Amino acid sequence: MGLIVQKFGGTSVGTPERIRQVAKKIAKKYSEGHPLVVVVSAMGHTTDELITLAQQVSDQPPHREMDMLLSAGERISMALLSMALVDCQIPALSLTGSQSGIITDQSHRRARIRRILGDRIRSALAEKKVVIVAGFQGVSETKEITTLGRGGSDTSAVALAVALGAERCEIFTDVHGVYSADPRVVSSAFLWEKLPHDLMVELATRGAGVLHPRCVELAKQNQMQLIVKNSLDPNESMGTILIQRQAGNSSLGMEEFRVVGVTSDKEKVLIRLRLTRPTVLGAVWERSAQAHLSLISPVFSGQDVSFYSERDGDSEWKKIFDELSSQGFVESYEMVSEIVPVSVVGDRFSQDGSALSEVIDVLSQSHISVVSGSASSLAITLGVLIHQVDDAVRALHAAFLESKKV
Amino acid sequence: MGLIVQKFGGTSVGTPERIRQVAKKIAKKYSEGHPLVVVVSAMGHTTDELITLAQQVSDQPPHREMDMLLSAGERISMALLSMALVDCQIPALSLTGSQSGIITDQSHRRARIRRILGDRIRSALAEKKVVIVAGFQGVSETKEITTLGRGGSDTSAVALAVALGAERCEIFTDVHGVYSADPRVVSSAFLWEKLPHDLMVELATRGAGVLHPRCVELAKQNQMQLIVKNSLDPNESMGTILIQRQAGNSSLGMEEFRVVGVTSDKEKVLIRLRLTRPTVLGAVWERSAQAHLSLISPVFSGQDVSFYSERDGDSEWKKIFDELSSQGFVESYEMVSEIVPVSVVGDRFSQDGSALSEVIDVLSQSHISVVSGSASSLAITLGVLIHQVDDAVRALHAAFLESKKV
Repeated sequence: MGLIVQKFGGTSVGTPERIRQVAKKIAKKYSEGHPLVVVVSAMGHTTDELITLAQQVSDQPPHREMDMLLSAGERISMALLSMALVDCQIPALSLTGSQSGIITDQSHRRARIRRILGDRIRSALAEKKVVIVAGFQGVSETKEITTLGRGGSDTSAVALAVALGAERCEIFTDVHGVYSADPRVVSSAFLWEKLPHDLMVELATRGAGVLHPRCVELAKQNQMQLIVKNSLDPNESMGTILIQRQAGNSSLGMEEFRVVGVTSDKEKVLIRLRLTRPTVLGAVWERSAQAHLSLISPVFSGQDVSFYSERDGDSEWKKIFDELSSQGFVESYEMVSEIVPVSVVGDRFSQDGSALSEVIDVLSQSHISVVSGSASSLAITLGVLIHQVDDAVRALHAAFLESKKV
Repeated sequence: MGLIVQKFGGTSVGTPERIRQVAKKIAKKYSEGHPLVVVVSAMGHTTDELITLAQQVSDQPPHREMDMLLSAGERISMALLSMALVDCQIPALSLTGSQSGIITDQSHRRARIRRILGDRIRSALAEKKVVIVAGFQGVSETKEITTLGRGGSDTSAVALAVALGAERCEIFTDVHGVYSADPRVVSSAFLWEKLPHDLMVELATRGAGVLHPRCVELAKQNQMQLIVKNSLDPNESMGTILIQRQAGNSSLGMEEFRVVGVTSDKEKVLIRLRLTRPTVLGAVWERSAQAHLSLISPVFSGQDVSFYSERDGDSEWKKIFDELSSQGFVESYEMVSEIVPVSVVGDRFSQDGSALSEVIDVLSQSHISVVSGSASSLAITLGVLIHQVDDAVRALHAAFLESKKV
């Protein structure tokens, strides 16, 4: 049987009790004969607690030392899970990111995976062991321990699945899978059993919290089958599978646009800046790229630039823009915290204006002001006022996902 | 053996001599045992000649009658090709769009395909006949003859392939396939043997003339294998296959962005308009969508709206905007004919700002002014001056497709 890579998040391994439950789940799968690699996050709030500890010790902890500190979190959970497995009579071996040969670039706290060696994992699998790998961490070419930043553990799991030629990658989390909209906002939102990778990239980029776009991009690029399941669902009866597109049997016309999800993202803010002159654009993007913060839906025209980025990255942006201002690049900037993105994700949006026209029309009928927007072939993203965003999601879901067959 | 749908464009069936050559090509494939459906365009400049005739007869020919007229072009080529096949001892039958059951909406001159019945095609195939279908045309639910507008014949071919469950769809055209850039602009541009559908949608939308985005979208949606070949290449040794993504063996780092093509489009112009107030946006998109003209990279913020559309659609846009102005929706508008879009198409562009930053940097080092731009996960599109656009394409191709392994 083919190799399966499973990943369990912080909540799933949050207590000793839960670690024992996860071990039982793994033991069951192992008994079916599947070779298994299991990626774990740090237990519950461990990472946050370690960050707090660092801040109590130092005003500006060096990123290298932060990575040394934070990478301890997954070492704890991987060792504990390995112990719990041995208790279940399952041969298990834990490996750090470094021991697994997860080679990254040198950007501490936000490293990107370059490639995976995986020799020790392969040897352990050959010995019929379940291999527990610390997620969220790797090692640079210069042998420094790095952490992967946002979406890190999921990305570790998919990267391992790709490098080891796994049959599939299963991400266990605290929701049942990917919904047509956030079920906390839209009571009629439904779970997708299957979704194509490219649409999941857009959903993830635009606020569907269940998976990070990084890991979905990696799965898409390599056509890795990626499954999202609820770790608390004992039967694993629900879940969403990301797979290659299949011939559609939709009741829509062959050339009609179609919608698979409506997302919003209150954790993002609209950032607007005015350059001193158009030619300094390069300097601004370069500086922003170096800071590795998100730049969602970037748009610029002449001296005006706008994009969405993390609300909690505010202070980092302020530092960058103040610096760029003092260097004579940026004339002014604002973080428009009351404007957040709402997106409609689907297919065939750039064929003509009808998708955009219908989206705007739905919002206008619901008396929702649209401040700004842009559209690509797979997504339409609009800036709306934060106090209207839930209404916007509900109106769009009702118009495109409830009344129409999809 | 599986059904193959082949499509031959206007140049391929441009003269009686070429029609006989196409018939020989078809005869060869038929003798290999493949059931065949062949979609043809009108011969050479027939459609243009019919349009000129109509303009000589009437100042404003009704769209319904234009469709009656234009659909004659493919009837001529399909009948001639069928005759040439019978001459080669191949049983052949020609069918119009209507006879083939290509059901469209009611928009004359730009109809969308809703579904395909295909009963007569299936019967003819069962009798071992090669079925020649008139491309670019269909019939509405109210039994009116419609034409499909831009990209129509390619779209007929892919839609038939999907509806008939074909093994693949082969588009014969006058180039060898899909290149990393236009070889007339970039001498080192290379032919792609394989490309994933979603990236081809972006290339086609952004100026790669070889395939129309409509037919690629349809192929993508249904994962139809689509092959582009040169009809003048007797060995059919070259060509590009659009297929599902496969696990990558790229030498790039796992999480690096990658570029597959650089395109530009001198047939597009930047259209900018200023609304009288933000709330009239819906009216503007609705009116634009009704006109069915392209809206590439639409962006809006407050009262400012911009997008790219067909240069030759200028007069139609002027009519729409004058009307919207007189209704108090549009304050002012301009068609910036000296600004055209140049695009970089690839993967992982929305992960962080590094792709955008590098693109801007390359252009700035080549002293190319970037007037505006936007980015999605698969494409970065920038507005540059028309006299600099070829230089822009060469600089970007050199930076991302020659020096880097892809």
